[in-house]
Amino acid sequence: MTHPGDLVEIKTHAQTEQGILMPDPDENTIIIKLDNGYNLGFARKEVLSIKLLEKRKESQKEEKEKSFDKKKKTILILHTGGTIASKVDYKTGAVSAKFTAEDLLEMFPELNSVANIETELVSNMMSEDMRFDNYQKMAEAIKKHAKKKIAGIIIGHGTDTLGYTAAALSFMFEKINIPVLLVGSQRSSDRGSTDATQNLICAAEFIIKTKFVGVAVCMHNSASDDVCAILPATKTRKMHTSRRDAFKAINDSPIALVDYNKRTVKFLNENYSKKTKDNELILKEKLSEKVGLLKVHPNIDPKLFKFFTENYKAFVIEGTGLGHAPTNMGVNLKNFELLKNFIKNGGIVAMTSQCLYGAVHPYVYTNLRKLSEIGCLFCEDMLPETAFIKLSWLMGNYPEDKVKELMVKNLRGEINTTRTYEKEFI
Amino acid sequence: MTHPGDLVEIKTHAQTEQGILMPDPDENTIIIKLDNGYNLGFARKEVLSIKLLEKRKESQKEEKEKSFDKKKKTILILHTGGTIASKVDYKTGAVSAKFTAEDLLEMFPELNSVANIETELVSNMMSEDMRFDNYQKMAEAIKKHAKKKIAGIIIGHGTDTLGYTAAALSFMFEKINIPVLLVGSQRSSDRGSTDATQNLICAAEFIIKTKFVGVAVCMHNSASDDVCAILPATKTRKMHTSRRDAFKAINDSPIALVDYNKRTVKFLNENYSKKTKDNELILKEKLSEKVGLLKVHPNIDPKLFKFFTENYKAFVIEGTGLGHAPTNMGVNLKNFELLKNFIKNGGIVAMTSQCLYGAVHPYVYTNLRKLSEIGCLFCEDMLPETAFIKLSWLMGNYPEDKVKELMVKNLRGEINTTRTYEKEFI
Repeated sequence: MTHPGDLVEIKTHAQTEQGILMPDPDENTIIIKLDNGYNLGFARKEVLSIKLLEKRKESQKEEKEKSFDKKKKTILILHTGGTIASKVDYKTGAVSAKFTAEDLLEMFPELNSVANIETELVSNMMSEDMRFDNYQKMAEAIKKHAKKKIAGIIIGHGTDTLGYTAAALSFMFEKINIPVLLVGSQRSSDRGSTDATQNLICAAEFIIKTKFVGVAVCMHNSASDDVCAILPATKTRKMHTSRRDAFKAINDSPIALVDYNKRTVKFLNENYSKKTKDNELILKEKLSEKVGLLKVHPNIDPKLFKFFTENYKAFVIEGTGLGHAPTNMGVNLKNFELLKNFIKNGGIVAMTSQCLYGAVHPYVYTNLRKLSEIGCLFCEDMLPETAFIKLSWLMGNYPEDKVKELMVKNLRGEINTTRTYEKEFI
Repeated sequence: MTHPGDLVEIKTHAQTEQGILMPDPDENTIIIKLDNGYNLGFARKEVLSIKLLEKRKESQKEEKEKSFDKKKKTILILHTGGTIASKVDYKTGAVSAKFTAEDLLEMFPELNSVANIETELVSNMMSEDMRFDNYQKMAEAIKKHAKKKIAGIIIGHGTDTLGYTAAALSFMFEKINIPVLLVGSQRSSDRGSTDATQNLICAAEFIIKTKFVGVAVCMHNSASDDVCAILPATKTRKMHTSRRDAFKAINDSPIALVDYNKRTVKFLNENYSKKTKDNELILKEKLSEKVGLLKVHPNIDPKLFKFFTENYKAFVIEGTGLGHAPTNMGVNLKNFELLKNFIKNGGIVAMTSQCLYGAVHPYVYTNLRKLSEIGCLFCEDMLPETAFIKLSWLMGNYPEDKVKELMVKNLRGEINTTRTYEKEFI
């Protein structure tokens, strides 16, 4: 007999795989966790044999004293869930994320050598399900703890929408007097191959060793376990489904690099290396639910444009090229009329580009000028995802005319006007 | 007095700019074309002065004999419009694209040294307005001309949706016995700085010098005027709004590089260097209008999911990470129910990732398995835009069960299973 936690070999007609047996999700499925941290599922009826290779190791849990070193600064870790918080409890058979400080330090004992660690659970979810109330809970927790004498805050977060959250927190704090580092991992934390340790340690070292304040992302800079990049909150995007170095600054450079082995920090953008004069924390936490994101494509249905103009007060278009939308010929003329009337009646439309790299520009072609003339806001080199978050935040906190003014103004580094020519752009 | 076509200097309080005066689009606006090929608009009331620097050159149009060299092969150029076909007629004052072979060879005289050139105008539009009937007209023109003794076809196309068109033509021709190269330009063709010449010449050289058959893209490989990349039709995406080297193969390498100066071709993927044995051309030109593309994001409105399930027979989700959608908690559970019922009632949902790089995978996380179990099709490393085109094509030509089978099968290189680890992925 095999039990969850055992190392097993599973044979089907097509393949032979080794891994840790996981609790069955239902009677028809068998799952093993591979050595690379991924789960692999099998239809039970296709499994020819399950061979026991090694019985599970009983975990020897001891209640450890929470250590506190007066000479060290304190970092707060807020948990929201995600892969970085995934840990298989082989006793109960469930995937659990009970994150007391003790659990955490048990998983990442190295953290204690950098700082005293406090923790708080904000939510426990995979990040694809994040909604605005989750952002608000995070912001409230940051606000609450920022008053205390802590060096900074690390937010453990699922990687899928980590970029959106970084942008949201960045806008919600109009002023901030503490470093807030969003950290995720692409491989679950209870595997030897996890990237969580390096990402957490580098975030902690960056908080302790620099004067940086504000929101940023800390993730692997390359596929090797050597250097983490500190990435700008409004310019960063998950660009790969599975690699450790999935997160990239788009139309911008990383803020700094942190060497995991040498424990050194190198700023790439010196603007961030000095502590800001603001010693305040101002939170504008409202986010409007009446904002949408519309990615356009050939043969798009005018009914979809209609849906956006009827259901939202403002929306971002993820356009093509320099900021085009299908609005100029035949069936597409309906889209133009819809946008024109929507804006005339007080709606707001913000234009970005699905190219991701480069900026939109309202004057290059006649068709762009037509969109600009009816009042589309061209958001320069802002990422579509960041534009959606920014527009939701502006609509939650400002009157319409102010939203229009601020949408095209750089508030948190989301518009980069300091780009210079580079030989390669990605 | 100044006239369209004159070189002028325009002064406002904020700036001084030189360029060719363009015809006024309306009484309130003045436009000049800068030396880099871009148009720049000014509000007339803000213009302090317009200084004439140089009168326009009267074009000396002569009716040239169309040259035909029996020793050379023939290439057909199909025009669809776009920046590559933009040319300012300073006499009439309108931006025109009257592309007879004579006009074309006048603009790109070098082409005649590579091949005899024939041309045909298929449409005259900027590519953001492309709809499926435009793809069908292109396919019909290819089919008509492929019977003749020509070496290959070049399609001049706007860059905004060139990648979508390349994918569409690639799927529509189930078999093809001729090279079809899509070529665009990022700077208009009547400027000295245009990239059109190199892109056209490299496409022509590639057609003449290789045995390649099929659909591909030919654009600048770097920002310099030296080498063009021949890019795979279903794996290529416009990744920058304005650079010459905007087009990149995602999860794949270019097929070949063409050196503009040396006129040499180097294959990077040898699979493409041999002529296929098929000497047939099979066109399945139908494309279903009942297919959508839904990009998900945090706080997405369940009403939007409802719209997609009610208005389309099939749709692609541009999910997060490994293929997640907001379907697992709270409000988002509505989205799960909508997808489940949609699929149960015969709808088709195909999952891709907004990361663009890397593949989706239905087994890594519990939430992914849940989507897979209700019947979402996980499209591996297929681009969201290619998945939308493929699904539209499959829905136009096959019954539902066949669509499901073929959607996750590699038909035209849209799923790349030969990826190997690379130190950097973008």
